Amino acid sequence: MKIGFVGLGHMGNPMCRNLLKHGHTLKVYDVVPELVRKLAGKGCDAAASALEAARGAEMVITMLPSSPHVRRAYLGDTGVLGGVAPGTPLVDCSTIDPLTARDVAMEARAKGCAMLDAPVSGGVGGAEAGTLTFMVGGEARDFEAARPVLQAMGKNLVHCGPSGNGQVAKICNNLMLAIGMIATAEGMALATKLGMDPKVFAAIVNTSSGRCWSSDTYNPYPGVLENVPASRDYAGGFGADLMLKDLTLVTDAAKSAQQPVLLGALAQQIYQKHSADGHGAKDFSSVILQYRKP
Amino acid sequence: MKIGFVGLGHMGNPMCRNLLKHGHTLKVYDVVPELVRKLAGKGCDAAASALEAARGAEMVITMLPSSPHVRRAYLGDTGVLGGVAPGTPLVDCSTIDPLTARDVAMEARAKGCAMLDAPVSGGVGGAEAGTLTFMVGGEARDFEAARPVLQAMGKNLVHCGPSGNGQVAKICNNLMLAIGMIATAEGMALATKLGMDPKVFAAIVNTSSGRCWSSDTYNPYPGVLENVPASRDYAGGFGADLMLKDLTLVTDAAKSAQQPVLLGALAQQIYQKHSADGHGAKDFSSVILQYRKP
Amino acid sequence: MKIGFVGLGHMGNPMCRNLLKHGHTLKVYDVVPELVRKLAGKGCDAAASALEAARGAEMVITMLPSSPHVRRAYLGDTGVLGGVAPGTPLVDCSTIDPLTARDVAMEARAKGCAMLDAPVSGGVGGAEAGTLTFMVGGEARDFEAARPVLQAMGKNLVHCGPSGNGQVAKICNNLMLAIGMIATAEGMALATKLGMDPKVFAAIVNTSSGRCWSSDTYNPYPGVLENVPASRDYAGGFGADLMLKDLTLVTDAAKSAQQPVLLGALAQQIYQKHSADGHGAKDFSSVILQYRKP
Amino acid sequence: MKIGFVGLGHMGNPMCRNLLKHGHTLKVYDVVPELVRKLAGKGCDAAASALEAARGAEMVITMLPSSPHVRRAYLGDTGVLGGVAPGTPLVDCSTIDPLTARDVAMEARAKGCAMLDAPVSGGVGGAEAGTLTFMVGGEARDFEAARPVLQAMGKNLVHCGPSGNGQVAKICNNLMLAIGMIATAEGMALATKLGMDPKVFAAIVNTSSGRCWSSDTYNPYPGVLENVPASRDYAGGFGADLMLKDLTLVTDAAKSAQQPVLLGALAQQIYQKHSADGHGAKDFSSVILQYRKP
Repeated sequence: MKIGFVGLGHMGNPMCRNLLKHGHTLKVYDVVPELVRKLAGKGCDAAASALEAARGAEMVITMLPSSPHVRRAYLGDTGVLGGVAPGTPLVDCSTIDPLTARDVAMEARAKGCAMLDAPVSGGVGGAEAGTLTFMVGGEARDFEAARPVLQAMGKNLVHCGPSGNGQVAKICNNLMLAIGMIATAEGMALATKLGMDPKVFAAIVNTSSGRCWSSDTYNPYPGVLENVPASRDYAGGFGADLMLKDLTLVTDAAKSAQQPVLLGALAQQIYQKHSADGHGAKDFSSVILQYRKP
Repeated sequence: MKIGFVGLGHMGNPMCRNLLKHGHTLKVYDVVPELVRKLAGKGCDAAASALEAARGAEMVITMLPSSPHVRRAYLGDTGVLGGVAPGTPLVDCSTIDPLTARDVAMEARAKGCAMLDAPVSGGVGGAEAGTLTFMVGGEARDFEAARPVLQAMGKNLVHCGPSGNGQVAKICNNLMLAIGMIATAEGMALATKLGMDPKVFAAIVNTSSGRCWSSDTYNPYPGVLENVPASRDYAGGFGADLMLKDLTLVTDAAKSAQQPVLLGALAQQIYQKHSADGHGAKDFSSVILQYRKP
Repeated sequence: MKIGFVGLGHMGNPMCRNLLKHGHTLKVYDVVPELVRKLAGKGCDAAASALEAARGAEMVITMLPSSPHVRRAYLGDTGVLGGVAPGTPLVDCSTIDPLTARDVAMEARAKGCAMLDAPVSGGVGGAEAGTLTFMVGGEARDFEAARPVLQAMGKNLVHCGPSGNGQVAKICNNLMLAIGMIATAEGMALATKLGMDPKVFAAIVNTSSGRCWSSDTYNPYPGVLENVPASRDYAGGFGADLMLKDLTLVTDAAKSAQQPVLLGALAQQIYQKHSADGHGAKDFSSVILQYRKP
Repeated sequence: MKIGFVGLGHMGNPMCRNLLKHGHTLKVYDVVPELVRKLAGKGCDAAASALEAARGAEMVITMLPSSPHVRRAYLGDTGVLGGVAPGTPLVDCSTIDPLTARDVAMEARAKGCAMLDAPVSGGVGGAEAGTLTFMVGGEARDFEAARPVLQAMGKNLVHCGPSGNGQVAKICNNLMLAIGMIATAEGMALATKLGMDPKVFAAIVNTSSGRCWSSDTYNPYPGVLENVPASRDYAGGFGADLMLKDLTLVTDAAKSAQQPVLLGALAQQIYQKHSADGHGAKDFSSVILQYRKP
């Protein structure tokens, strides 16, 4: 299929490579020309704008860092909606706020295009391995139509309901993830301060009602699990600043929806302090450093 | 075995019945005479004090509501330590603060008695079915010695390390449980407010990094799971006031240990407000009522 | 002086009336035609757009509800910057985020116009009485030049430093105000629950280190002070929803600045819950209802 | 008057000196013999126990570090109540929890003695200068009877209502003080991060609704006020660990009273983290170091 792809950063680049591997042809654009040059080659043409990338495409995919970028890439003077033919499916894989996702989808619909919001989880590793999870908002039949293309990039496709719900699922999951990580940090730090062995405590919690993904799969206490960032000085993984960005999105969405999220707002603050303390580039499980010296 | 048992409330009563079923003989005491009368009968004698219940016993078990009760039951004028023979194993199943547990164990040791702190999880249901989990602090060999008796009352016995560690494991697990429950409440309430179906959102979270026991086993949103308190108007289960008591224990322990628990302290406050709003007798998953009208 | 005035709501209307009283002539615009009609008359002409209100004016004043409104009113197709002559002083009295204030001021400067951000405190009462406080950001000489006109509407003019600093002063003051109000609510509610007379406690605090404006001038406990909203069922005053708006502004600004505000974020959540509970239209001191039944 | 005085630490010592200066004679006791020796001399006899200090006294005054100390000093085997003659007025100047204060007062009453709880503010400086503030709980006529003696040590005597209310006033004031200090820290740190001059911002807040004692009298930002700890690297003043102790008392009292104090609980946590970070011995205004590098 001829695909227009906009946004070629850490995530977009490997996603494009997987699309090419599956035999699709691409027209790609990024505001950073260097990123375009890195990809252009056999089956992959460079475009000079989002509009040009979209022109003649049978599907357009975008992967951008924030809501204003998405708005500009679709609605700007040289944006996607200026170039697409009516009826072209549009898939935005960025993690942005649900209201912007719904706004842009509405504008797309006005041009006769079906749009899906399809934020991913799985990180750069998942993007390279083609094993991303896509949380997709939009019409069910549009979701089904896009499935074969998404499967070139990911393994797990979840339809979350109408437009915007992919974003809602993503940010609300990450709200719970961030709180769960800090809860695990508080529990592990307190239990060991009170005299327990960290592995023994983790083993108990992980078969009890206190368990969560952060305790049993991604434990922040060094040495409890192998092959997690906590056991390599918090290198790699999902950066604390990325978690902070998602917490900012979700607390902003909660403000718009007039919905209290007390623990969420405090979690956002704790990550904000963690970042201000200079730990933003470390894996997000490093938040335990707010509670104990290594 | 001849067992002295002190504390015959909602938990103590069924624990005694299970001990009797397994062929043990009991001498029981409670400050409320009515509770003693309810149990006394074949194989179960009434005692007039903790001291008397302990006299001649081959093991003493206590199940009491709070630290001062435990201190009095063991160290008071008519307490257990006044009646036991040196060498008698002592098992306290109350949930209390670890410092008191360690204090009392030290006094017991001075009298030549090994003491275990063995708080339980599983609630009244687990006590009746004999399927409690015991989290046990104390010497390994004392834990092994007590195992056959504990197995009459529970299914899952976990040795958590030296004296007091049973309490540490219990309250730190419940710290993480309380935070996880409120996190789930915030996530479910926000996701649905933003337009998602609660079952769809729960299904996504439960296969993602936001999952926790409160989301996949005890979801607080009505109708997501069957057979949980949320689906029967928050009746039964583990009362919000009991969770508040455990949160008070754990935040107090954190104060003594000079250990910050920011989310834990806020969780304690949210349950305090929930209780002040009149919901203390409901299951603890009812805390979601702080976030949405039913 | 010939003044263009944009934004004729609860605050803008009385501000215009005071300008007229002091002999200025106005050209006024609002998106709601009814609000324009209410004012138009002797010395006050109606304009069909912000651009038209600005055309020929010797000064332009705006009083709008939020950042996007300000951006549109100045930078939109029919905005102020399309109509003003170079060199015309511009004064925005809206409470908005400092970054937007600085952006718009920079665009104005590019057109040769000096812009001041001049948010007010004092409410509708102050606007009617002409006793508003103006917190002003911008060049000192522009502040001095605008002084005579501002004095027609307010009593207290404070120069806060360069562009945007009026907004910073306003929202950071309100951050401290909101926290102080909730602190007073918590202190009053706890002291009375523990058996103190509210007036006695307030009298002690107000001569001690716990005093703040909310305790000595605007006490939220009914009956402690006369002539405050607390003593008339929280009617009138500064609405809880307006405080929530300012808390949202200030926590957003803190996010942009990567600056933690832990109590501020929790205060924002408490007002969010207060509003969700249906109290948004009451005076902001009604937040004490989160802590005690009246 | 012949006064028995128990507790001769940093506060008790200068309080005794002031009593001696005003012509009273003392019999003093402390568990640390060295502290007794430092004071004993003309008009001041050493006692071997609280009981002995109380024997023959016309009034007994105590100044102790915590609730268990007070309980022991009055009710222990060699405690005050074992030595006093019925009718002797008893004044406890310790800062402790109101419930203990009421308990001990009740026991004293059973022995025929009127007891006042009279915690102080003003610190070591106030104790030396004889300018302490006494917040007094107990019967009005007992308060009046004690007035002449208290005036030897303090300047400001406030009757707060019945027994325990002195403690309530003290800890609830300090709850508001701690929150106000952190609010000021957050406001000052954010305003300056957003580009304001700290003195200009403080001047604005201090004439506006955001003002509080911590902003106008004890500002935590270095250089805003002279002669405060912030301007001498947070040396001297009221130690962060002492504030943490008072916050622990007040949040414990709130737990007992089932009264939510959300900001108070978070303030307690912030001071706990501040102390864990190694700043406990600095003045409590140093909490601003949680928000900005110096």
